[in-house]
Amino acid sequence: MSRLESMRRRLTAQIDGINWAADQIKGIDGDVLEMGLGNGRTYDHLRQEIKGRRIWVIDRILECHPSCVPPEADFLQGEAEDILQRMAGEGKQMALAHYDFGFGVKELDVQEGAKLSPFIAAVMVSGGLVLSQQPLVGLEQISGPETIAPDRYLFFRAP
Amino acid sequence: MSRLESMRRRLTAQIDGINWAADQIKGIDGDVLEMGLGNGRTYDHLRQEIKGRRIWVIDRILECHPSCVPPEADFLQGEAEDILQRMAGEGKQMALAHYDFGFGVKELDVQEGAKLSPFIAAVMVSGGLVLSQQPLVGLEQISGPETIAPDRYLFFRAP
Repeated sequence: MSRLESMRRRLTAQIDGINWAADQIKGIDGDVLEMGLGNGRTYDHLRQEIKGRRIWVIDRILECHPSCVPPEADFLQGEAEDILQRMAGEGKQMALAHYDFGFGVKELDVQEGAKLSPFIAAVMVSGGLVLSQQPLVGLEQISGPETIAPDRYLFFRAP
Repeated sequence: MSRLESMRRRLTAQIDGINWAADQIKGIDGDVLEMGLGNGRTYDHLRQEIKGRRIWVIDRILECHPSCVPPEADFLQGEAEDILQRMAGEGKQMALAHYDFGFGVKELDVQEGAKLSPFIAAVMVSGGLVLSQQPLVGLEQISGPETIAPDRYLFFRAP
């Protein structure tokens, strides 16, 4: 498979995963959290598919496409661990979180995911969903939509 | 349509377009030219789908994924206009060219495409195909595969 086809498959997994999760959380109260804004493509899809919920965004820098800049009050700039701790302290509760941090170096990305997992869990409402391209720990891994290859995207449910 | 969906549609157009063109040029002698390597995804797809032809690559800088670095002799670093003129002077003949230069600012990209068009035409074998996301001038615009929306990808035949 060429890297062009692989990228398309990744985007398809993101689209199918977010659409599936948007439906799954319909009965669950809570906000949405995007961890890693990047160019803003998944944020744009989240806000298209999920109406009526606040979508918080964490990233170190704001460097997204101009059309995807989050409302200033919802963009939390800085280190995720600190921000997640603060959010938990404030009692913020997420029904859905999308984890998209990564350096592009698998070993480091897995470490980072493991390190942040408890802080993510602390802001999730019970039964809330986490979508991630990295393995996370301490959350129940569940099956996502059947269309997604299991190594492409991971789905977790908060205890 | 979210930017995530739009990006997927663009990748699909690239994949379908390259696959279609690879088939179309089967009876046409000549090399392949990638203008704009970027991260190397379309180059990776071109080399996967088109065997037995030399694939020249023009870009100002080499910043692709490590797995997509072209052979040193095939990577032509610098300004496209100068390089295309030199290639034409050396009698290089392309059966297929993929035009993927762009600043991301439509007006500038259209200007650049128009400016480079005669230099591209000068390295194309008669009947050779040019795939482009920007309008080019002085080449016959033709229909590509039916699956691609006409505004996503443009197809040209060299006179």
